[in-house]
Amino acid sequence: MSTINQYHVAVVGATGAVGEQMLHTLEALDFPISQLTLLSSARSAGKKIVFKGQEYTVQEAKPESFEGVDVALFSAGGSVSKQLAPEAVKRGAIVVDNTSAYRMDPNVPLVVPEVNEVDLHNHNGIIANPNCSTIQMVVALEPIKKALGLKKVVVSTYQAVSGAGHSAIEELKSQTDAMLKGEEVEPQLLPVKGDKKHYPIAFNAIPQIDVFQDNGFTYEEMKMINETKKIMHMPELKVAATCVRLPVVAGHSESVYVEVEKEGVTTEELRSLLRDAEGVTLEDQPEEQIYPMPLFAEGKPDVFVGRIRKDLDEDKGFHLWVVSDNLLKGAAWNSVQIAWSLAKQGLLSKKA
Amino acid sequence: MSTINQYHVAVVGATGAVGEQMLHTLEALDFPISQLTLLSSARSAGKKIVFKGQEYTVQEAKPESFEGVDVALFSAGGSVSKQLAPEAVKRGAIVVDNTSAYRMDPNVPLVVPEVNEVDLHNHNGIIANPNCSTIQMVVALEPIKKALGLKKVVVSTYQAVSGAGHSAIEELKSQTDAMLKGEEVEPQLLPVKGDKKHYPIAFNAIPQIDVFQDNGFTYEEMKMINETKKIMHMPELKVAATCVRLPVVAGHSESVYVEVEKEGVTTEELRSLLRDAEGVTLEDQPEEQIYPMPLFAEGKPDVFVGRIRKDLDEDKGFHLWVVSDNLLKGAAWNSVQIAWSLAKQGLLSKKA
Repeated sequence: MSTINQYHVAVVGATGAVGEQMLHTLEALDFPISQLTLLSSARSAGKKIVFKGQEYTVQEAKPESFEGVDVALFSAGGSVSKQLAPEAVKRGAIVVDNTSAYRMDPNVPLVVPEVNEVDLHNHNGIIANPNCSTIQMVVALEPIKKALGLKKVVVSTYQAVSGAGHSAIEELKSQTDAMLKGEEVEPQLLPVKGDKKHYPIAFNAIPQIDVFQDNGFTYEEMKMINETKKIMHMPELKVAATCVRLPVVAGHSESVYVEVEKEGVTTEELRSLLRDAEGVTLEDQPEEQIYPMPLFAEGKPDVFVGRIRKDLDEDKGFHLWVVSDNLLKGAAWNSVQIAWSLAKQGLLSKKA
Repeated sequence: MSTINQYHVAVVGATGAVGEQMLHTLEALDFPISQLTLLSSARSAGKKIVFKGQEYTVQEAKPESFEGVDVALFSAGGSVSKQLAPEAVKRGAIVVDNTSAYRMDPNVPLVVPEVNEVDLHNHNGIIANPNCSTIQMVVALEPIKKALGLKKVVVSTYQAVSGAGHSAIEELKSQTDAMLKGEEVEPQLLPVKGDKKHYPIAFNAIPQIDVFQDNGFTYEEMKMINETKKIMHMPELKVAATCVRLPVVAGHSESVYVEVEKEGVTTEELRSLLRDAEGVTLEDQPEEQIYPMPLFAEGKPDVFVGRIRKDLDEDKGFHLWVVSDNLLKGAAWNSVQIAWSLAKQGLLSKKA
């Protein structure tokens, strides 16, 4: 730890739901910061944010904002990343991007440290942080792949609204309150802000996250499918996803069915593998009604795994229930972990 | 229709959430009733219920209550059915039982009329109504099985609290209200009334419905697995289920992955099959954001199917999203449908 330098860190999208958690995570992990630059859209510029007892004024993100920055954490939407990440790189910063802008770019590593930290060695200035629902799943899949081989994954998600930002949380809460009072509600935002139709999320389940692709899958489902194969270096892995938004504030849950390569594996073997896995907290004692739930995962960086069962009809089939705070391991925590890993491996240049 | 007689109908559990819907369904389907007997536990006896403009007093269910009854619809819990269904049969009634008491009894047909109406011919006085989550799924699976063959089903459910009764709806609502006000909540009922621990359902997802079995599956999951094979007459079908309770008042949703026997089937072929299927309403236009949602299924007897997609990596794999009101097609509607079918086929004796 004594070889760690201090770094000039920029957070782009500092006033957003993920940006806020990035700052909490930088604090929680005691990231070695020499200078902190908080950036946002023009609309949010001027806001004050307290970090480690010191007040910062959020500035509008511009190309010049990145002068002298060592590492820039982006979470302000894909178009901001497309426009400004190259500007940051041009000025010598390493970008950790939490949007989908660069994730499938073959020249950009897509990293979950517990799975493919090694890919950090081959970047061209930008490292992509995967989609929230992908991250928590691959943390649970990697130890299975390593020990037993992995052939097939079918996942159904149970996703919180916090992934759609502060305003989605507000919509869920105000809509729920109105419905309880028997008042009319007029959905404004969910399932997708920019899409044509909006549906109530309170007391509902909406099988649409992000926009539809021509193949009938949503973009969120395609992210889970494509990103999983890229992160795990398994283009041949069969992956399918159905992504559903729920009236849950924070914490994504996933019902994951996997088929392994190895024959004759038992539930207890799989449980034991996941008990020892990096980044995983096993919560799996059915006889005591112990299993992961999103309400109790909120605010915690772990990926919680439980409900592990061998399929009754398929020797190589297993079921898992995977829960994590989508703003933490699914976004902010993983991004800061990437920056930490770069720093520890001497891959972050100190320019100050 | 002119050959239909009038029948003496008894509803056991008339004051419960399902019993209430049974009465609505008997009204909606204009079931030919000569006499109506409403029965309940001693605790609820004496309550008044209005049916087709006439007031009835609920009586305590006893063996003698079934004298002269032609058809008795039971939905008052497994122990009541075990005790009183044989008494009703002994007195000449046909019992349609909406509990799990007799479902897996080899001498009791387990019937979803769209799937195995033919099994009604071989009963010994009791016909079992399947579990809610099973019913809506097999209605969607049957046309697929018939046209394409079926090898494997993996389902993850998104279940409403109404399946756990009036008090569970009350718990969801009061808990949600308390949480919005930042008040402490003390769960009393969910996930399972009689189990050791209770967890909040508001803004949460609980991966437990009914009690755990020794194999790590819940009883609800085992019901889906075993009942599906029995109803579809496919002991060899591979079925797996993960059942999850959500903060949704009414309407179960299911993310269903199937593998068919036939090669080269397209999404459009599957869509076309389901468009024409009995009991199914297709809601599947992703380009218009049209897909089924529980909030809009409430109060409707249909099984809504959408999000139909061919798997991208598995030629024989398909994904469906299946939604239905669990108290209607999942319980009351299916029970009354069974009684209607018996009547139309002359299998209900008229003793009056």
